[in-house]
Amino acid sequence: MLPEFKEHIESHFPEILSHPTMVAISGGMDSVVLTHLLIQLDIKPSLAHCNFQLRGEESDADAEFVSELAEKWNLQLYSKTFETKQIKAENRGSTQMIARDLRYHWFNELIDQGKSTYLLTAHHLDDNIETFLIHLSRGTGIQGLLGIPERNHPILRPLLPFSREEILRYAKNNQLAWREDSSNASDDYLRNRIRHHISPQLKELHPSFDPNFNRTIRQLTQEKQLAQIEIDRARASCFTSDGDGYKIEIEKLQALTPLAAYLYHFFEPFGFSQFGAIEKMLNGLSGKEIRSHSHRLIKDRTHLLLHPLETIDKTCYEIEAGTTHLQHPIGLQFEKVDQMKEKQAGVLYIDADCLQYPLTLRKKKEGDVFYPQGMRGKKKLSKYFKDEKMDTLTKENQWLLCSQDQIVWVVGKRGDERFKITPTTQNIIKVTLKT
Amino acid sequence: MLPEFKEHIESHFPEILSHPTMVAISGGMDSVVLTHLLIQLDIKPSLAHCNFQLRGEESDADAEFVSELAEKWNLQLYSKTFETKQIKAENRGSTQMIARDLRYHWFNELIDQGKSTYLLTAHHLDDNIETFLIHLSRGTGIQGLLGIPERNHPILRPLLPFSREEILRYAKNNQLAWREDSSNASDDYLRNRIRHHISPQLKELHPSFDPNFNRTIRQLTQEKQLAQIEIDRARASCFTSDGDGYKIEIEKLQALTPLAAYLYHFFEPFGFSQFGAIEKMLNGLSGKEIRSHSHRLIKDRTHLLLHPLETIDKTCYEIEAGTTHLQHPIGLQFEKVDQMKEKQAGVLYIDADCLQYPLTLRKKKEGDVFYPQGMRGKKKLSKYFKDEKMDTLTKENQWLLCSQDQIVWVVGKRGDERFKITPTTQNIIKVTLKT
Repeated sequence: MLPEFKEHIESHFPEILSHPTMVAISGGMDSVVLTHLLIQLDIKPSLAHCNFQLRGEESDADAEFVSELAEKWNLQLYSKTFETKQIKAENRGSTQMIARDLRYHWFNELIDQGKSTYLLTAHHLDDNIETFLIHLSRGTGIQGLLGIPERNHPILRPLLPFSREEILRYAKNNQLAWREDSSNASDDYLRNRIRHHISPQLKELHPSFDPNFNRTIRQLTQEKQLAQIEIDRARASCFTSDGDGYKIEIEKLQALTPLAAYLYHFFEPFGFSQFGAIEKMLNGLSGKEIRSHSHRLIKDRTHLLLHPLETIDKTCYEIEAGTTHLQHPIGLQFEKVDQMKEKQAGVLYIDADCLQYPLTLRKKKEGDVFYPQGMRGKKKLSKYFKDEKMDTLTKENQWLLCSQDQIVWVVGKRGDERFKITPTTQNIIKVTLKT
Repeated sequence: MLPEFKEHIESHFPEILSHPTMVAISGGMDSVVLTHLLIQLDIKPSLAHCNFQLRGEESDADAEFVSELAEKWNLQLYSKTFETKQIKAENRGSTQMIARDLRYHWFNELIDQGKSTYLLTAHHLDDNIETFLIHLSRGTGIQGLLGIPERNHPILRPLLPFSREEILRYAKNNQLAWREDSSNASDDYLRNRIRHHISPQLKELHPSFDPNFNRTIRQLTQEKQLAQIEIDRARASCFTSDGDGYKIEIEKLQALTPLAAYLYHFFEPFGFSQFGAIEKMLNGLSGKEIRSHSHRLIKDRTHLLLHPLETIDKTCYEIEAGTTHLQHPIGLQFEKVDQMKEKQAGVLYIDADCLQYPLTLRKKKEGDVFYPQGMRGKKKLSKYFKDEKMDTLTKENQWLLCSQDQIVWVVGKRGDERFKITPTTQNIIKVTLKT
């Protein structure tokens, strides 16, 4: 396999021929073979070994084996011992996940410290087949079928196209010694089940199963990339930034085919999974809302509004008598003035004697009514919002300045008749919205 | 499974609730269950049964069983016996492929005759898993992983989301009888190997393997559709129709990423498989050519030229003295005239006495030289072509009118000095290119 490996390195990973390279070595067959192959190509990698102390003496013997190998092959060795069991006790996740996190975290540290430019792992074709089948069984979609990435800077996996069988043959032909990991037989139930019972039978279905599999995942990766280009293009045509969220034009959305695929790709990244409901929403009533754990999607007349959940501040803020400046949640300035000047956007003049403290600053609530200035009588706030053609999110973000619970000002929009300046007003307060 | 089936029909195949429907019935469990399910939904399908006579008495007994079932359930039956073995002897392909072709051909006939609007087959989830794994082992790419199509008008496959296990349970619960196909155990080696040894183990990897698998192939289908949209868009931007082929702008092609994916999708449909070579060609010398079984792809300076192989006519046509009209391969008219008129595109005046018959009409060949009118001396034809900035295909399609083997006219482009009209010319022939 050396000639094929050489060719693969030259065509896919030429960078490791001229940059410091480190191998993540367990002492098992795969990483020992990878190291040996590199040495044959006159690449002298440094080695990084993790001792997770999960198999007692065996773990220590692995570390010892790697240390001897480094000495024998004259390679720089970085070795680290982890208190994995203790760390697991203090954290969430399986032992496997924790060990993986520790490993990659340390590898990145070594890279950051300039110990190497690249870090190579010895993942191979059979690891990839196992990963493929595990993801197939879990239904994780195309992403799960793409296999282990060949490069994920600074991590490179140059053994990925080679099978365990090829690696074993190479190891034997070169009389390499390695450590058998006893956990192979029990540690990872699913993987071992596939390795010993399913993969061998699958491979018997076709004499070229291995290269065919490699070709398939390469092609799937490309299809995914092409699909992503189309998704990005379509998203750019439908989505408009809107504060910390997006407005999405429904008409453009509905022109997309297959719509279900676009909806999945557009909204899955925001935590949504109810794509059928989203599709129905497009023709549904305005105001309809669907939530994910992090976002809300609201049907407005011509658009969907997509916003982070936390944007709607539902707090009721109290404003004590004598307050001159309010900074949060919005900027308001209160001044005593002698007379009212010309009307001005963002400014309201109030008859101070009509106010009851504390004032409150809050969002709309069910049943709100007010007496819009310039109109006779009262109006439901919801009716006012509707007449103003405010979209659902704007409604929810609209602050109301209240005297106790009576609306004094739909802030920045309309004052209330009950608090306006009249010929009998003696004390005037000018409220200015600072934006 | 009846409620799930009902819901599936209502949401995915509402058309069969209101149109004549036929079931392709073998007499095996799957097609018997499908028929029974439809009857429960008050759909009375007609039945179509093929007797391929491949299993002697068993085949006849299957036909008899279906006939009795049709009578018992009061369904219209169409039944046809095929001389499959004889047809196989006369044709290429495996028995299985021939039987499939015969079956679908006959089904289409029945539909064309108006016997039904739709034809339903009983393919199910486990058929789909088997097909997926067979294609995975063959490396047929994403297309092979999409599974059996749910609809391929007029054929519909409403059992696809249901597993063999569910179908078996339904059959038992409803005390249905069916015919076991003895060939299941031997006929289709690969499929049975998967069915009995691989699928059961895969399903044990995850309790929701079946629905997860359904979701995966649905998602792969959508990814493929999205990728296809991008491919079509990119193709439209790079390809320009050019006669019976295409000109493809290299600069635009090179701007595409991942280029390998686009090259695959652009050129695979024309029979190409040498995508690495095509990629190299983009920066290669003009004139470089790659062929598929049906097409040639030629590097020109700024474009690739893609053309069917048969467009280049390499024949050398002879033109006898006295010919006045030539129609094939191009239209030429020969007239004796008294005098030469003003120069005109597509017209050449020749000194008749310089010609030696038969004239020939042919394409360029190695070593061609001529004496371009208006120039002193001779010139290599290849140099002339180059100076005229003719692309490779234009060169190859350029006809040359020759006197025996001497070039008289680069047809439509430039006459030869040796044959031109001089003060001493006595007989003039006017040659006109008819387009």
